[in-house]
Amino acid sequence: MKKYVYYFDEGNAGMKDLLGGKGANLAEMTSLDIPVPSGFTITTEVCDVYNRNSKTYPGEVLDNVWKNLERLEKDMGKSFGDSENPLLVSVRSGAKVSMPGMMDTVLNLGLNDETVKGLIKKTKNERFAYDSYRRFINMFGDVVMGIEHRHFEEVLTKIKENKGAKYDTGLDASDLKRVVEEYKKVVKKHAGMPFPDDPKKQLKMAIDAVFNSWMGKRAVAYRRIHDIKGLLGTAVNVQAMVFGNMGNTSATGVAFTRNPSTGENKFYGEFLINAQGEDVVAGIRTPEPISKLRQEMPEAYKQLESIYKKLEAHYKDMQDIEFTIEDGKLYMLQTRTGKRTAHAAIRIAVEMEKEGLIDRNTALLRVDPNQLNQLLHKQLDHVAKQKAKIIGKGLPASPGAAVGQVVFTAERAHDLAEDGHKLILVRTETSPEDIEGMNAAQGILTARGGMTSHAAVVARGMGKCCVAGCSDIMINEGGKSFTAGGTKINELEWITLDGSEGNVYLGQVAVKDPEISGYFQTLMKWADEKRKLKVRANADTPKDSEVAIKFGAEGIGLTRTEHMFFEGDRINAVREMILAEDEAGRRKALAKIEPFQISDFIGIFRVMDNLPVTIRLLDPPLHEFLPKEEGDIREIAKELGVSAERLHNTISALHEFNPMLGFRGCRLGIVYPEIFEMQASAIIKAAIAANKSGKKALPEIEIPVVANVREIEILRDLINSTAQRLIAESGVRVSYKIGTMIELPRACVTADEIAPFVEFMSFGTNDLTQTTYGFSRDDAGKFIQKYIEAGIFEKDPFQTIDRNGVGSLMKLCIEKARGVKEMEVGICGEHGGDPDSVEFCHEIGLDYVSCSPYRVPIARLAAAQAVLKANK
Amino acid sequence: MKKYVYYFDEGNAGMKDLLGGKGANLAEMTSLDIPVPSGFTITTEVCDVYNRNSKTYPGEVLDNVWKNLERLEKDMGKSFGDSENPLLVSVRSGAKVSMPGMMDTVLNLGLNDETVKGLIKKTKNERFAYDSYRRFINMFGDVVMGIEHRHFEEVLTKIKENKGAKYDTGLDASDLKRVVEEYKKVVKKHAGMPFPDDPKKQLKMAIDAVFNSWMGKRAVAYRRIHDIKGLLGTAVNVQAMVFGNMGNTSATGVAFTRNPSTGENKFYGEFLINAQGEDVVAGIRTPEPISKLRQEMPEAYKQLESIYKKLEAHYKDMQDIEFTIEDGKLYMLQTRTGKRTAHAAIRIAVEMEKEGLIDRNTALLRVDPNQLNQLLHKQLDHVAKQKAKIIGKGLPASPGAAVGQVVFTAERAHDLAEDGHKLILVRTETSPEDIEGMNAAQGILTARGGMTSHAAVVARGMGKCCVAGCSDIMINEGGKSFTAGGTKINELEWITLDGSEGNVYLGQVAVKDPEISGYFQTLMKWADEKRKLKVRANADTPKDSEVAIKFGAEGIGLTRTEHMFFEGDRINAVREMILAEDEAGRRKALAKIEPFQISDFIGIFRVMDNLPVTIRLLDPPLHEFLPKEEGDIREIAKELGVSAERLHNTISALHEFNPMLGFRGCRLGIVYPEIFEMQASAIIKAAIAANKSGKKALPEIEIPVVANVREIEILRDLINSTAQRLIAESGVRVSYKIGTMIELPRACVTADEIAPFVEFMSFGTNDLTQTTYGFSRDDAGKFIQKYIEAGIFEKDPFQTIDRNGVGSLMKLCIEKARGVKEMEVGICGEHGGDPDSVEFCHEIGLDYVSCSPYRVPIARLAAAQAVLKANK
Repeated sequence: MKKYVYYFDEGNAGMKDLLGGKGANLAEMTSLDIPVPSGFTITTEVCDVYNRNSKTYPGEVLDNVWKNLERLEKDMGKSFGDSENPLLVSVRSGAKVSMPGMMDTVLNLGLNDETVKGLIKKTKNERFAYDSYRRFINMFGDVVMGIEHRHFEEVLTKIKENKGAKYDTGLDASDLKRVVEEYKKVVKKHAGMPFPDDPKKQLKMAIDAVFNSWMGKRAVAYRRIHDIKGLLGTAVNVQAMVFGNMGNTSATGVAFTRNPSTGENKFYGEFLINAQGEDVVAGIRTPEPISKLRQEMPEAYKQLESIYKKLEAHYKDMQDIEFTIEDGKLYMLQTRTGKRTAHAAIRIAVEMEKEGLIDRNTALLRVDPNQLNQLLHKQLDHVAKQKAKIIGKGLPASPGAAVGQVVFTAERAHDLAEDGHKLILVRTETSPEDIEGMNAAQGILTARGGMTSHAAVVARGMGKCCVAGCSDIMINEGGKSFTAGGTKINELEWITLDGSEGNVYLGQVAVKDPEISGYFQTLMKWADEKRKLKVRANADTPKDSEVAIKFGAEGIGLTRTEHMFFEGDRINAVREMILAEDEAGRRKALAKIEPFQISDFIGIFRVMDNLPVTIRLLDPPLHEFLPKEEGDIREIAKELGVSAERLHNTISALHEFNPMLGFRGCRLGIVYPEIFEMQASAIIKAAIAANKSGKKALPEIEIPVVANVREIEILRDLINSTAQRLIAESGVRVSYKIGTMIELPRACVTADEIAPFVEFMSFGTNDLTQTTYGFSRDDAGKFIQKYIEAGIFEKDPFQTIDRNGVGSLMKLCIEKARGVKEMEVGICGEHGGDPDSVEFCHEIGLDYVSCSPYRVPIARLAAAQAVLKANK
Repeated sequence: MKKYVYYFDEGNAGMKDLLGGKGANLAEMTSLDIPVPSGFTITTEVCDVYNRNSKTYPGEVLDNVWKNLERLEKDMGKSFGDSENPLLVSVRSGAKVSMPGMMDTVLNLGLNDETVKGLIKKTKNERFAYDSYRRFINMFGDVVMGIEHRHFEEVLTKIKENKGAKYDTGLDASDLKRVVEEYKKVVKKHAGMPFPDDPKKQLKMAIDAVFNSWMGKRAVAYRRIHDIKGLLGTAVNVQAMVFGNMGNTSATGVAFTRNPSTGENKFYGEFLINAQGEDVVAGIRTPEPISKLRQEMPEAYKQLESIYKKLEAHYKDMQDIEFTIEDGKLYMLQTRTGKRTAHAAIRIAVEMEKEGLIDRNTALLRVDPNQLNQLLHKQLDHVAKQKAKIIGKGLPASPGAAVGQVVFTAERAHDLAEDGHKLILVRTETSPEDIEGMNAAQGILTARGGMTSHAAVVARGMGKCCVAGCSDIMINEGGKSFTAGGTKINELEWITLDGSEGNVYLGQVAVKDPEISGYFQTLMKWADEKRKLKVRANADTPKDSEVAIKFGAEGIGLTRTEHMFFEGDRINAVREMILAEDEAGRRKALAKIEPFQISDFIGIFRVMDNLPVTIRLLDPPLHEFLPKEEGDIREIAKELGVSAERLHNTISALHEFNPMLGFRGCRLGIVYPEIFEMQASAIIKAAIAANKSGKKALPEIEIPVVANVREIEILRDLINSTAQRLIAESGVRVSYKIGTMIELPRACVTADEIAPFVEFMSFGTNDLTQTTYGFSRDDAGKFIQKYIEAGIFEKDPFQTIDRNGVGSLMKLCIEKARGVKEMEVGICGEHGGDPDSVEFCHEIGLDYVSCSPYRVPIARLAAAQAVLKANK
């Protein structure tokens, strides 16, 4: 005969398939001789049978439940349905995988008009007993009988009004007794049947409700979205209730086996005498630190101490435990892996490895790479933050914190920063023209745009705090002010941004600098020893490059040359080039830009001595370098010495319906080869200069937006002939590579044609996601929220690589390219700093990932974890 | 010993690999006992040896050349280098595949100061002899010795100036003798060596020049672009010169074995007595019709008659022949397949099949499907066209001809057309709002946009003449005029468009209606018997559907519902829907649109009785339905009863950076399910009504812009539940399918995920090309010309499917989808009417192609040819 029900001492942690996670863990604690309120688990197999047989299960199941219930009564010395010393139980679902919100818990099951008397006797607290009773009816009515919570709420509100009570606490025992009566009427009315008094009937109904919930809409959707397959169903846990509020010999508490904030190896927690578990969390009474329990209940504390040590040693991780002391007797209600800060996670992992509790691989897997973000940026002071006034909430687009005076134009930011002001640049949205201003500001706040808008991407690259798409603010640029949350903020008033949470605060809020600990360095060292993927950074300046090196980058995977086109005097030379009527005119203007490019590259090569530097040739469409607003057009025309009409004509000739799919990247190089020739020349001249000064430049010249092998053939010839001429003239050895960015589906499917002509490929997954999915980052805002709600995207495809779509094109590309010849393949999109995507990059055999300098440590750890996960 | 040189009687037409196309054909004619001036061919193998051995070949090659030359002298009774009766030869290249422009011909080789005297004696024409001589030096100097033509031209110009002669004809024999002397000086100066007098040296140099030209830049590029591979090289043909200008017993002519204009089986051509081949073409003297030759030279004519019949019977195709009669003796200089009009091509193919000259498959392959375009549209009268004034030239965006009065807005076109005016709509570019006006006009002229711009696509769909992207015109919409070629055209002035050639004519030019012959019907019947692909049409109205049926469509592959949204009263209801603030408001507006949609669909279903009709749900972004210009905004706001500010706000909220990658297609259906629900409801209600009236509607409901299987799952449920409810309510049987347009790379790579949820797939290759290549049709104009010049595209990927890129994604999609289940797969992009693309669609196993109604016959023929080509 099949075993349908397991008493807690019959199972263990290895039986999660059959007992679910919760049941297996309770069994495990029981088998460790840790005092757990007794109980039993109905297996997931019963759920499977139930759902496949029109909601019925064999008669033996209930026989077994009653048999185990008898044992439970005996173990607890209480009787189910007894009016003197009643056994009450909790009923909880529990599948192999945790599915939050699938079904709520039913507590205090077993209460009725008779047993409540027993509870009063045992607790000597009539109000508590009736409060438990009315809560049980509500919970049971809602969860088991499907009556909406609001019906109970209405009754309660009315009784409170009659009594003139504002809170539930204003009701006494007799009021609550009336609530119980009224609640029963609610049940009868809405369920069409009276509230079941019989505790066994209650139990049977609760068990069936748990099984039904497995096929409920919410649970089915959850499993689909999270791709949870192959489970039999949920188990049902029936456990004796214990009470920490049975007087001064009772207590309840929560604790962590180590400090979850700092990671220090010291027992940490809180407790309350004569209280229920909820009271510790609710904040009505102030709990005592756990150390005080040693004085108040030395026996129980001693027992607790030995248990927490046993649990940590057993589970080999910091545990978050809940306990209840009922009349001097200690019970463990839960143990689970404790949540912790990034600081704590690192310290605990490193120290546990040193203690020999876990091995190094386990230590590496214990830290969530995304958490490292916290460590590497400024943070708002925890206390100061609580008191500050939030005036708006946007997207946490680039982590960190920033305090500054408000300015509305990049120019003003630049000018005032030179005078020593600390500034926050506030814009409706940013464009490449704003880069200098963004650089000059402490942080950036935009009213429009998503996590991958221009402001967000550039800010992350700069390691600068940014709150994007804050629709709460209304900017009046002309009036030099914005309003937010009913407050008007004028230019030069102070605000504070929290880029990790997306909050905008009024005034100056105290900020803490990031601190990097020795534990962090140790963990990174371990990660570096383990990982196979190289990690590079995306960096456009010598300064960014220095940050990248500091965080452990092994090269630069993407230098965006267009950012250099915007700075200072150059922009006018760029505009002159765009306005030129022939090649000679363009060459003249380009000759003015070249010296700037050369010195930019020399700076980067010197910092990145002997490390590869991938430099992408001009990428954006030319109209991005021209002004948009009438006033600017007139002014700039004057500066350039052309008529406003001429500038207008050029702007309108360059106008694009879909700039993302327009005249950009290598298409510029094909039509105006002199632009790419100048850039190639600047790169090689800079490399020659760097090499002459004793450094070793390793430029990798990258051709963007390639769709067709002929584009590469033509531009490669152009670059090679330029480079070889300059190298021959100089007599200095320079080794350089020519490669391409893979950012269009056609480049992926024709990678075998492209491969013979390149020495490296680097995935530009931002654009590849846009073209593969057919939507632009800038425009997706109109529907992406709905898409996430509808479960169309599991994850935002601009944050985590869409494995089935974009990822499968990447795999195809690598197969085709490496089928022709071995070559270096990397990734330089935003995804390069996303742990999930890094894991995918490892799986498909990339050589490196490249991300913003501040995400380099994240990528290093994620790359190490990818190795460990692949070896599992 | 290898045979390096073949005398013409040693080869045949099957030896093209070795002798090249020209050599093999001359040999073939020789072997048919047709009088061809004798000569010989140096094989392609020699070229191969030459180019692989540092430009040398074995000594035997030249030995063989001289041996064959001796035979040639004997055959012709002339002597190479002789001053009495000199043999002159032509030297021509000729590879297996014709490569136009690879190398020019050298004529009259063998002339020098001595042999020219012989030529004078034989022709009794000193001027002719010196003219031939100086042309030879020029030609040889240019082609063989690499001296630029302009150096010769300068000398000639100077001598003409001195003489006061405007044309070459103003120079007499002694002048030309001086030109010869001066030309020799040019050669010496620029080649650094004297002009070679020795005819044998001339011949050797000419042969080497031909071989060198094989590896020349032009030839290499030509082979690369046309993907010509695996050839050994070019052959060299050395042939005796004959002269048709040796007096009144000489003549020269060109003829066709059948009438190339009508196809009539009647000998057709022209000749000139005492003239050279060039004279017939040059138009200085008016040639006589070939029938007159029968009277003038009955012997030669009789011989010619028997030869042309022999050639046609031998080559089994209409031949274009050149002949020369030298002193009463007939020589054939060339025979090749003759070019012909579409009418002629069809008639010749059908008649030759009836005559038993060719089989039916060959007949089908004889007509270029693209040529059919000529037949199906109005054409300008050939004679009237010659006299008319061209004021501009644009792209031949939609074939046909149109005469009308100029208007500048769609509204005006609509209003005036109702009064019976014939109009040409002239716009900078068109947008969906212009559709009614386009429909009302005879033709459309735009100043901007390419072959796949909105104007072009819509006009082709309507079968309406369109000249697009005519940058010669400058529109002054306010002033109701445009200027073109220095002429100002006011509103209501007449112009004429030739949409097949892209010309814009001033005034009214006579137009011929299309005529469809019985030959055409026969050919189409044969095509239908042969083809495997079904052919459907893209049609949005009952009228289009009727045209489609007339041209043989077997269903509708694409009905674009958005076109129905623009018409008449509906547009305001659509705008009301867009402006609605909640679902209820949207539903209210949609309820107004539904009756229109129902009646649209009923009309189509009735015409397409028992044939499938694929209806695409709303595709374009909503902002396309809103006005753009300030004046319109104010006016429309008033009509809708909202403030201009509110309309402005909606327009700005819906603004997109990249509309192509924006909030459109199924994304609209996910966010506003009520829109798709209304459309599904209208389709099913229309099908019920059509079925009730005794017709059989077969709707295929198509969900556009799908990237993710979840989109399909959600919308399919919505459509199914709507449809099943309506069908159940009506009690009428309706069979319908739900499927998706495949137009994004992600849909291709995840086709196996999508397949289980759809009953058909249809490739939208316009958008698929845009996303795969990463450029938009609207914006590609800025670089596409340069791309075609640089050989990056063999063909415009928007006209012919890019097999390696887009095509390989299509193949992947079909493999993945059909790996899951069998299903109907079609194509409905513009490519569906392109013969090359139709062939590809057949190869990859599509079920049908769908194209504009006017291209249906093209697709039918192309589909038949695809079968024949695949079986080869």
